[in-house]
Amino acid sequence: MVSFAVLGCGRIGRMHARNIGSHPRAGLVGVYDVVPGAAEELSAELGARVLGSVDEALGDPVIDAVFIASTTDTHVDLITRAAKAGKAVLCEKPIDLDIARVEACWREIGTLDPLVMIGFNRRFDPSFRALRDRIQAGELGKVEQVVITSRDPAPPPAQYIRGSGGLFRDMTIHDFDMARYLVGDIVEIQAMGATLVDPMIAGEGDIDSAMIVLRAASGALVHINNSRRCAYGYDQRIEAFGEKGMLQAHNRRPTTVESWGAERTQARDPVLDFFIERYFEAYMAEIDHFVDCVETGAKPLAGFAEGREALRLADAGLESLRTGGVVRLER
Amino acid sequence: MVSFAVLGCGRIGRMHARNIGSHPRAGLVGVYDVVPGAAEELSAELGARVLGSVDEALGDPVIDAVFIASTTDTHVDLITRAAKAGKAVLCEKPIDLDIARVEACWREIGTLDPLVMIGFNRRFDPSFRALRDRIQAGELGKVEQVVITSRDPAPPPAQYIRGSGGLFRDMTIHDFDMARYLVGDIVEIQAMGATLVDPMIAGEGDIDSAMIVLRAASGALVHINNSRRCAYGYDQRIEAFGEKGMLQAHNRRPTTVESWGAERTQARDPVLDFFIERYFEAYMAEIDHFVDCVETGAKPLAGFAEGREALRLADAGLESLRTGGVVRLER
Amino acid sequence: MVSFAVLGCGRIGRMHARNIGSHPRAGLVGVYDVVPGAAEELSAELGARVLGSVDEALGDPVIDAVFIASTTDTHVDLITRAAKAGKAVLCEKPIDLDIARVEACWREIGTLDPLVMIGFNRRFDPSFRALRDRIQAGELGKVEQVVITSRDPAPPPAQYIRGSGGLFRDMTIHDFDMARYLVGDIVEIQAMGATLVDPMIAGEGDIDSAMIVLRAASGALVHINNSRRCAYGYDQRIEAFGEKGMLQAHNRRPTTVESWGAERTQARDPVLDFFIERYFEAYMAEIDHFVDCVETGAKPLAGFAEGREALRLADAGLESLRTGGVVRLER
Amino acid sequence: MVSFAVLGCGRIGRMHARNIGSHPRAGLVGVYDVVPGAAEELSAELGARVLGSVDEALGDPVIDAVFIASTTDTHVDLITRAAKAGKAVLCEKPIDLDIARVEACWREIGTLDPLVMIGFNRRFDPSFRALRDRIQAGELGKVEQVVITSRDPAPPPAQYIRGSGGLFRDMTIHDFDMARYLVGDIVEIQAMGATLVDPMIAGEGDIDSAMIVLRAASGALVHINNSRRCAYGYDQRIEAFGEKGMLQAHNRRPTTVESWGAERTQARDPVLDFFIERYFEAYMAEIDHFVDCVETGAKPLAGFAEGREALRLADAGLESLRTGGVVRLER
Repeated sequence: MVSFAVLGCGRIGRMHARNIGSHPRAGLVGVYDVVPGAAEELSAELGARVLGSVDEALGDPVIDAVFIASTTDTHVDLITRAAKAGKAVLCEKPIDLDIARVEACWREIGTLDPLVMIGFNRRFDPSFRALRDRIQAGELGKVEQVVITSRDPAPPPAQYIRGSGGLFRDMTIHDFDMARYLVGDIVEIQAMGATLVDPMIAGEGDIDSAMIVLRAASGALVHINNSRRCAYGYDQRIEAFGEKGMLQAHNRRPTTVESWGAERTQARDPVLDFFIERYFEAYMAEIDHFVDCVETGAKPLAGFAEGREALRLADAGLESLRTGGVVRLER
Repeated sequence: MVSFAVLGCGRIGRMHARNIGSHPRAGLVGVYDVVPGAAEELSAELGARVLGSVDEALGDPVIDAVFIASTTDTHVDLITRAAKAGKAVLCEKPIDLDIARVEACWREIGTLDPLVMIGFNRRFDPSFRALRDRIQAGELGKVEQVVITSRDPAPPPAQYIRGSGGLFRDMTIHDFDMARYLVGDIVEIQAMGATLVDPMIAGEGDIDSAMIVLRAASGALVHINNSRRCAYGYDQRIEAFGEKGMLQAHNRRPTTVESWGAERTQARDPVLDFFIERYFEAYMAEIDHFVDCVETGAKPLAGFAEGREALRLADAGLESLRTGGVVRLER
Repeated sequence: MVSFAVLGCGRIGRMHARNIGSHPRAGLVGVYDVVPGAAEELSAELGARVLGSVDEALGDPVIDAVFIASTTDTHVDLITRAAKAGKAVLCEKPIDLDIARVEACWREIGTLDPLVMIGFNRRFDPSFRALRDRIQAGELGKVEQVVITSRDPAPPPAQYIRGSGGLFRDMTIHDFDMARYLVGDIVEIQAMGATLVDPMIAGEGDIDSAMIVLRAASGALVHINNSRRCAYGYDQRIEAFGEKGMLQAHNRRPTTVESWGAERTQARDPVLDFFIERYFEAYMAEIDHFVDCVETGAKPLAGFAEGREALRLADAGLESLRTGGVVRLER
Repeated sequence: MVSFAVLGCGRIGRMHARNIGSHPRAGLVGVYDVVPGAAEELSAELGARVLGSVDEALGDPVIDAVFIASTTDTHVDLITRAAKAGKAVLCEKPIDLDIARVEACWREIGTLDPLVMIGFNRRFDPSFRALRDRIQAGELGKVEQVVITSRDPAPPPAQYIRGSGGLFRDMTIHDFDMARYLVGDIVEIQAMGATLVDPMIAGEGDIDSAMIVLRAASGALVHINNSRRCAYGYDQRIEAFGEKGMLQAHNRRPTTVESWGAERTQARDPVLDFFIERYFEAYMAEIDHFVDCVETGAKPLAGFAEGREALRLADAGLESLRTGGVVRLER
């Protein structure tokens, strides 16, 4: 049984708190938020204690683990303090928007060998995970090419864009991590971006559409395409191609119904929209994996290093956008 | 908040007890089973009280509703007693294997206007329900034909067959109910059966394969095909055809992964197997609907009459098997 | 090289004449039609001789084979005369609407051991043929159930209905033959019919919708469903189910394009409509098979007996409609 | 009626000669090849005259059009001479491997305003064409992203690689043209290549795998992925994404059969392999379009300029490979 405190009771924190509450080997002990009332509301729903401060959580010997679901700018501080307090940490991505801070964080806590897991939920999606397991079992032979399609249903508001660190650090970071999950370390990146969806995003100095090509140390080539808008829902697909064939993982829909009529046949529902629905099973499996790690001491599938490497790729992608050239990643 | 006692702690009872336990507006108060230890085990898992007798459940004013998941031969007695005790009843199908007992049961309790819901879980499957809702919304115009495919992964043991009432009362009863769910009352039935899967089943005087045609009062024709064996899993599909087109509801699989190779392309996983996995969401939605009925007094989507009519169709199908002729159902 | 005369230059005759003309080992020598001008028009298009009479065709030693594409009431006479004249015969289905005339025809010509092939084009559809070949290769193990879906896009005019011999002899006859193609001889039939599409058809004493169940001598059960209307095109599908799994053959569409939008995803074109488009490849392969039979003396995949058996099934189906009972076919 | 001479009687020339022969408004008058016997063989099959020289074809007033299917190094010379002789020209891609020669060719013949069509057969594929027509009809709104998947079944022999001009000029050239067909002129290109399939190809100084990103003048981004090997056949797909949704065009298979079994479900045939089978309908439609252009004076869908622009993109891609940087195309 792993006892959790959830730090941050916004939308994503509430979802994780519920998932922790329903996990057979996890218990939700306390919840904390800087916004008055947020923790109280969640406490009323789930029966966990309202924590008066982060220190209360970190000082409580009953609490084994903290789930950090607060704003990005607080992650490094909370990871550091929690690691020093001997708590296991599951932190939402990204670790930080600044790679220097991320690296400094690890210099400070790395010697403690803390259990820090980063919430790259897509690694736990049953279909993406099955695709990866089948690759590792040799079904494709050597993987030669991967295509990752990742499109959000609709652009976020300007305020969100402003604090997001830009498309690559906010959205593509998941795809960079997926690339690494499937083909390992990346050595080169080329990126092309555009603002095709919403001029507001250009106004914020960001892009809303991107096409990226990566080269892995293994030799494999990976393509990522992103858009901040997708009329048919949250488009999340992977195609991996190798010597012996191809594996695809497709979108999920609310039903299996197909409609056949005079205008069209085999028409299906729009795809699940948005991440809380699409990755429902993944978020549950993420908690389950973390609980396993806490209980057994196993290394998490997405540790601190995964968070750092995905951010390095985002930064390299931004440099490629700026220079138009291929960027080589030092190892 | 609706408080439940679960009567019968076998596999299906345990599943429902867990679903009740996780429903936000339902509570599991007590569990009962005639087999020593079964209720204790479930109680230990879920924290509900072990009930010493059915009467203890029916006499407890805290308990609003009973879930009857005991053996078929106990259903009529338990429904009757629970209805008289003023409890809401959710009972697994079938009500009984003997239509005379079913009708006698209703004569005894009907005037009490009890809330009795029968566990025709497939009515609550999100895809089947969406198919029906879209029919009712007029997407097909008048429904002309329905094809119901319903195949179990593997035949049950001889002992189960012996007490099952035969294929039609045990397995097809779900499909008879589905036919009524989609096109309303049935007026004619023709059935052809065979033992193609397992000679043991013929030895028990039962069939393991069937093809049935029904005519609805609406004029629609319905085909049901059944098998007690299906190599690729639990095959559960519906196709409804009307003036304006067709709606299909398909099987569900564990992942969305497709495999492409030298031998085959677009190959997917075997389908979910068996009912607890396939109809997981349906069983949850069934509890949810029943809780709604208890709280609001609404009529359940599958009441006592649905249980009786499905059994009448099973009996009529058996008569058609015996005579080779069409059997007309009196209304 | 096989030289053909085409008797009957209506729509279907013209199609076959063009297919013969483009076959590398077939030649179109002459065309004949009772309607003035019809043969002339086809001759102008394809360069074949206009024949003044059937006798001119049958008496011409250059002509190896006749394709009978004239009206159904002329088939028996033309088959008989052509067989006696030593010509190979490829005749559109049905042989006749009257089983007595069909049997008399064979009594008259059977001893000549003529090459008579009946135009059951669906046997030559690449997908249906592959499905059958894979069954025969053992992919399903023993075949237990078959579902044949066969729906025309729209009802024909009253005049056509009047001369058609009814749904079973006109349309279902193809499905009866398909059943025999897949599972062999049929021993029992149950049929249910209705007029759900067009009251005109009821006025003509015919039905426009049917659901049929057959039992094969092998033990397999077969379901056929028919409609004279299908909003999404010409619905032609087969599903064969056996010990080891299932094979399905699906509809064909003009393109592989899928459309994804806010209302629906994966939407495809309506299916090919009507038989000339849907079975284009089948008609070509039918000619090819017949040419092989003429050249090598092989038995055709669909001989006179297939035409007779399909008609017997149509008649038995009509009897089942009338009596409501199962009809057993004498062997 | 358009009379053709076919210059070059290799595999592709023979295919086109047959297609011309079976086109209702085209006639195959003569065939020519430098290899002794090749023209004779084709003449024997199709009945066309064997031409003793290119001049004999160009000097014959009966001949309206030449189909140039000889080796790439002869294309520019033959296009030039045919254009000067007033013949309509349909030439296999590429025009040449050297952009300077291509531009010189047009300087020489451009003022004659000749009808020169380049054999970009994929523009005529019914599915790709439908996808484009639907884009132009506004189904997607503004096109934002396109993904072109293009993989050959197996690498060609070393000798072919040596004379091919490299992956981009030989294989990707079709995809560059497809990109222009769908989104218009291209202004930027980034390319990443690798040799993952066959070391022989690296030995020849070529690559066998590539991922490319293009930016169109319209703003749209286009991704192309290529491989010289594909276990499941000739992988040819397009995905176009816009404001209102997505259109996909998929691979084609020999049958519609799906197989369901204990190991996998919905498994389909490998895809059609290779270009002559996959693009059979496209090649027929290409001839048809060219005949229309000859008869009506319409501009071909793929003129000389399309051949030149695709080659410029190939050259720019090679430059990007070399420099690792984005290459901007001058307009």
